[in-house]
Amino acid sequence: MKEYCVGVIGALGAVGEQMRDILAESDLNIGKVKMFERPELEGELAEFAGEEIPCEVATPETLSECDVATMSAGAAVSEKLAPMAADVGCAVVDNSSQWRLDPEVPLVVPEVNPEDLDWNNGIVANPNCSTIQMVVALQPLHKAYDIERVVVSTYQAVSGSGVDAINELREQTEAIVNGEEPEVKVYPKQIAFNALPHIDVFRDNGYTKEEMKMVHETHKIMDEGIEVSPTAVRIPVYRSHAESINVHTASPMDVDKVRELLSEASGVEVMDNPAENEYPTCLTGEDRNEVFVGRIRKDPTIENGINMWVVSDNLRKGAALNTIQIAETMAERDLI
Amino acid sequence: MKEYCVGVIGALGAVGEQMRDILAESDLNIGKVKMFERPELEGELAEFAGEEIPCEVATPETLSECDVATMSAGAAVSEKLAPMAADVGCAVVDNSSQWRLDPEVPLVVPEVNPEDLDWNNGIVANPNCSTIQMVVALQPLHKAYDIERVVVSTYQAVSGSGVDAINELREQTEAIVNGEEPEVKVYPKQIAFNALPHIDVFRDNGYTKEEMKMVHETHKIMDEGIEVSPTAVRIPVYRSHAESINVHTASPMDVDKVRELLSEASGVEVMDNPAENEYPTCLTGEDRNEVFVGRIRKDPTIENGINMWVVSDNLRKGAALNTIQIAETMAERDLI
Repeated sequence: MKEYCVGVIGALGAVGEQMRDILAESDLNIGKVKMFERPELEGELAEFAGEEIPCEVATPETLSECDVATMSAGAAVSEKLAPMAADVGCAVVDNSSQWRLDPEVPLVVPEVNPEDLDWNNGIVANPNCSTIQMVVALQPLHKAYDIERVVVSTYQAVSGSGVDAINELREQTEAIVNGEEPEVKVYPKQIAFNALPHIDVFRDNGYTKEEMKMVHETHKIMDEGIEVSPTAVRIPVYRSHAESINVHTASPMDVDKVRELLSEASGVEVMDNPAENEYPTCLTGEDRNEVFVGRIRKDPTIENGINMWVVSDNLRKGAALNTIQIAETMAERDLI
Repeated sequence: MKEYCVGVIGALGAVGEQMRDILAESDLNIGKVKMFERPELEGELAEFAGEEIPCEVATPETLSECDVATMSAGAAVSEKLAPMAADVGCAVVDNSSQWRLDPEVPLVVPEVNPEDLDWNNGIVANPNCSTIQMVVALQPLHKAYDIERVVVSTYQAVSGSGVDAINELREQTEAIVNGEEPEVKVYPKQIAFNALPHIDVFRDNGYTKEEMKMVHETHKIMDEGIEVSPTAVRIPVYRSHAESINVHTASPMDVDKVRELLSEASGVEVMDNPAENEYPTCLTGEDRNEVFVGRIRKDPTIENGINMWVVSDNLRKGAALNTIQIAETMAERDLI
């Protein structure tokens, strides 16, 4: 059985930490791990499965030993570093937006489109968090009923914006609890006890970049024929995104059958018993690997429609977990 | 000019307090106000425009002096008290769910269907908060373009559940800030730093009562022909509900024209300049009378569609303000 040398690029960041944790639990037959960070952090220790591993700087030489590396270093760094790694035979699973819509780079959610890994040229892109959990929940329905259109409104956690945003929610909340004026630094407006219909920058068409990611990435991962009408909203939650999704299909759906299909789908957990107050909340998703689906009900306003509520940990399935699962799937398919 | 005697039933509750504040600023030519509370609170003082007014118990005798009374005492009390008041000539504007779907009782948002007041029999119902702000924003579009279908996801503040819920969010938040375990009492699950897709009780069709209110009340206020597909979600915000609304019309819409129509609409304030980060958040709505609309953009996934984001203070326009506006409109139309 092949042993893999796995690199973690951006090992000390918020996602890097998740990446190390999840990699340590991975089924990948890991022979060696290498930790990479920017030059200022060279030699800093990154914990992996109880060991302290000094961070290296990523160069063709240091990368060449790796079979595959996860990369969470932002789009600008990835633009240079990913091709460099791929050139020396280190396949890269990149977590930034840099390569997601590049026609030569597969954009993959292993439960949905693992076969796209087969045409990779050394770089694979990990989708945006809000897209991942949506397509995992949509794919079983698309296979069975042919999805035509989706209207989605998100309820997104601050951890999607990084450590500074987590601190901002905490600090603003503490200020308000203590009767002080909350300070606004990371987000354009106060996030504590508020809801902001604004994630990432605005585009000319009035949609945000986050919203357009959900459109374009869903097309690339699933099917160009699925129309997506998105609204992305930040709410004062630390972790796990929720999504209210209205699904319109070509074929008639049966709600019990939908529940059954989702229950059987890989990576999905149905939590849908309203009589017992069973439905996922953001706290349900925290630190869990599954995409949780609840509130599944017929939409009587169209011929073939349902509404559902989808929750997942934006740092795990929405980022680090999906990245590691891509690497695992590449190994299963003998691509690394 | 006629002087009105106005009663405030449930004067000391959370909505009653708002009611007194807004009534004091009202254009209604008030000759006298009377405060009503349940027998245990008889004689307690309710502040009105700087005066302290002792609360009375509502009886045919005490009510008969009033031309009109606002009632915020819950459905069970209203079932008995509203007809009793109407019988002695005191028109009731009721804030509970008791009469909303009664075919003999008009359900009114003055900007939308003031003419329905003309067929009242002494009782008028004030709609649910989440419906009011939606229909105020939809009505100008319906007039111009004929709305066929609406998909709406709400972001609702805890004050909609009353004082105990406000305290619960505060106490849970304080507990978490202090590293303690938050206590769950009012809501079925923790609300602090969470999102609950559950408002009011579940119905057999999988929708909550709150969601079905948005369907049935929109039909009654606006048009039976408008299909509404709702998802109602509680988020950790104290005040002002937000709604992500996808609108599908029979006639083609022009986004600039939509913005213009909404700008000219009574009770609406358009706040929609993404380039300058101008859009409403829940905090925008707090203590304001307007229904704020932003993020207006074409929905390219259907022929005639837009998405928009609607915010309003659930305690003012969503409750007390709309109730007082109903009374004012009844006076204008010589109905009291």
